[in-house]
Amino acid sequence: MGERQNGRRARLAAHVAERDAGALLVTRLVNVRYLTGLDSSNAALLVPADGPAVLATDGRYATMAAEVCPDLEVVVDRQAAAALAARAARSGVTRLGFEAHAVTVELHGALTAAAEGADLVPLGRPVEELRRVKDDDELALLREACEITDRAFDAILPLLRPGITEREIAIALERQMVDLGAEAPAFDSIVASGPNGAIPHHHPGGRPLERGDLVTMDFGARSGGYHADMTRTVSLGEPAGWQRDVYDLVRRAQKAAVDAAVPGADTKDVDAAARDLIRDGGHGDAFTHGLGHGVGLEIHEAPLMGYDRTGKLRDRVPITAEPGVYLAGRGGVRIEDTLVVRADGPELLTTSTRDLLVL
Amino acid sequence: MGERQNGRRARLAAHVAERDAGALLVTRLVNVRYLTGLDSSNAALLVPADGPAVLATDGRYATMAAEVCPDLEVVVDRQAAAALAARAARSGVTRLGFEAHAVTVELHGALTAAAEGADLVPLGRPVEELRRVKDDDELALLREACEITDRAFDAILPLLRPGITEREIAIALERQMVDLGAEAPAFDSIVASGPNGAIPHHHPGGRPLERGDLVTMDFGARSGGYHADMTRTVSLGEPAGWQRDVYDLVRRAQKAAVDAAVPGADTKDVDAAARDLIRDGGHGDAFTHGLGHGVGLEIHEAPLMGYDRTGKLRDRVPITAEPGVYLAGRGGVRIEDTLVVRADGPELLTTSTRDLLVL
Repeated sequence: MGERQNGRRARLAAHVAERDAGALLVTRLVNVRYLTGLDSSNAALLVPADGPAVLATDGRYATMAAEVCPDLEVVVDRQAAAALAARAARSGVTRLGFEAHAVTVELHGALTAAAEGADLVPLGRPVEELRRVKDDDELALLREACEITDRAFDAILPLLRPGITEREIAIALERQMVDLGAEAPAFDSIVASGPNGAIPHHHPGGRPLERGDLVTMDFGARSGGYHADMTRTVSLGEPAGWQRDVYDLVRRAQKAAVDAAVPGADTKDVDAAARDLIRDGGHGDAFTHGLGHGVGLEIHEAPLMGYDRTGKLRDRVPITAEPGVYLAGRGGVRIEDTLVVRADGPELLTTSTRDLLVL
Repeated sequence: MGERQNGRRARLAAHVAERDAGALLVTRLVNVRYLTGLDSSNAALLVPADGPAVLATDGRYATMAAEVCPDLEVVVDRQAAAALAARAARSGVTRLGFEAHAVTVELHGALTAAAEGADLVPLGRPVEELRRVKDDDELALLREACEITDRAFDAILPLLRPGITEREIAIALERQMVDLGAEAPAFDSIVASGPNGAIPHHHPGGRPLERGDLVTMDFGARSGGYHADMTRTVSLGEPAGWQRDVYDLVRRAQKAAVDAAVPGADTKDVDAAARDLIRDGGHGDAFTHGLGHGVGLEIHEAPLMGYDRTGKLRDRVPITAEPGVYLAGRGGVRIEDTLVVRADGPELLTTSTRDLLVL
C-alpha cells in the first residue's frame, strides 16, 4: 500500500521542484487519497519539493490516518489546508503551489492569510496528470469493477419485462453489483426507457417498461475506490426500423472510437471517429455530449474526450467510449465500454455483448 | 413545485438588490436546485436584482430543465457559469455577485474574462442563509426521510448477532431504507463495532460482531432530496460497567443539547450543553467533533453546531444533535437525532428509543 503512494509523492515532488515552488498544497480530497491512501471528507497534504510530505485532517479521521499512512506526519486540525499553508510559510517556503481548480476564492483568502510571507502560485493539475496513467494495482481494481458490472448486467436481464419500472431495474442492478463484491455503485444508475431514453442523464422513475421500448442502462461498480462505467441499450420486443437503424449507427460509431483509441491519438480525433459517423448517418445534432472520459478514483477524470478536447492518449490510460443518439419524444441509444488504451490495442474491460439484445 | 422556487428566487433577488449588485451568479449546484428544482451536475443560475432569472445547463440536462422549470429561460452551454456571466455583463450589470465559497480560483478567472466590464463581488452565502429555515414541503420530506430511517433501524435489529459483519449491517440498513421508500441512502452508512467504535467516521468493514461489543450505526434515508441523519449505539450482550457509564453520559449530553435547541439559542451554547456534561463526566477530550449540523438538501449544511460556531437558531431550522465519546482501542458511543427547532419546543423527527438496547 504505502509503497505506491510513496512513489507518487516522489514524482509529484519532482514536478514541484521543476516548477520552482517550495511545496504544493494538495487540497482536492481525491488527490489527497491518491497520494496517501486516506479517504476522508476533510484533509490536505503538503508536498515539499524536498523533504517529507505532511498530512492534515480533523479529529474524526486522526486514527484512520495513523493506520493508513503510518509513514506520514499527521497534523490534526479542522482547518487542514490553512494549517499546512501556515506550516509551509514557517518552514521558509516562499512560493507555495496550490490547486487553482479546487481552491475556492474564499479558501484562497484564508490560505493567503495563513501563509504569511509566501506567495500562492497556481501549478496547474499535476496530481490529475499523474493520475491519468494507471499502475498495475489500479488496473486490477478497474478490471474487477468492470467484471462485476458485466456480471450484474447479465444477472438482471431476465427482469427486463413489461411492467417493471426503471427504478426497480436500477435498484436490482445496484444490489447485484454489491452482492457480487462491489464496495458500492460507482454513481447513480441511469435507467431510461421509451421516450425517456432521449434524456441522456434521466433519473430512473416509476415508468413501467412497455413492449416496443428501447431501454438504456448506464451503471457501474466501484472496487477499492475505482470506478467502472458501462451502458447498454436493449429492445423490449422486436425493434422498429428506426430503432434498429439508430442502434446500428451508434454501435458502429462506438466501435470506431474504440479502434481509434491508441497511444498517441488525440482525444478530439477519437471523439471525431464516432461523431463523424453519426453525423454522416444524419444524427449529428442528436449526439449532444462528449465521447467519454477517463475513469479511476473518479467516475469522470482526465482525459475528457470531446470534439473540442485535445491531448494525446497514452499507454495504460483507462477511458470510456460512449456515443449516443437522443431523439426528443421518441427515445435514444447509448453504448458504452470502459477500456484501457494500450500499445498493443485497446483492452476492453467491459465485455458484455454490443449486439442489440431483443428481449 | 414552481411556486416555491419562484418565491425563493424573489427573496434572493431582494437580497441582491439590498447589496447593490445587479445580479447574483449562483453556481453551487445544490443552490441551483433549491432555486429551480433542477438536480444536475452542471448548471448555473443568474438571479438579477430586478427581472427574471436565467438558468444555464448543458445538453444532457436541457430536456429535464425544460420540464422542471418551464417558467425559466434556459441557456444550453457546457460552460454554464461563464455563459451567464457574459450575459449579465452584456445586459449592463456592472456589479455581479458570486459565491466565493463555491467558485474556484480557476473558475473565477474564467468568469472575470467572460464578464468583461463587470466587477465580480462576493456576496456571502445568501442562498445557504435562505435554506436554513425550511418551508412545509421541506419539513414534510425530512419527516418522511426520518421515519423511513427509524423503521429501517427497527427492521434490522434482529440481524445484530455475533458473526454478522459491519458491512453486512450497513448493506441491510441501506436496502431496508430503499425498500421502505427512500430514494437512496442519505450518505455512506457508518457501522463501527467494538474497538472500531473509537473511529467516529469508520468505514464498515469485514469485522464480525462479537459478544461484548458496542455497535454504533450512523445512517439515514433521502426523500425528495432531503436527508435524514440518525445514530444509535447498541450493546451486544450485557454491557461492561465502562460501556454503560459512557452510554449514560452521552445520552444525558444528547438530551441536554436537544433541550437547549430553542429559537434564539446560540449554536455554541447548544453545543456546550452537551460538551460541558461530557467534560464533567471526565471525557472532554474524547468528544472530538462538533455537536451537529443543519440538514436539508445537504447532509451537512448551515447551521454548523460546534463549540466555536456562533449564530442564533430559529424556528423551523432542522439540525442534528450527535455527541459522542471515543476511547482509542476500546470503543465508542454516539447518539444522534434529527430534530426541528420550533417555538413550542424541539420536534424530534428521529423517534427510535434512546435507551441502551442490549441485544
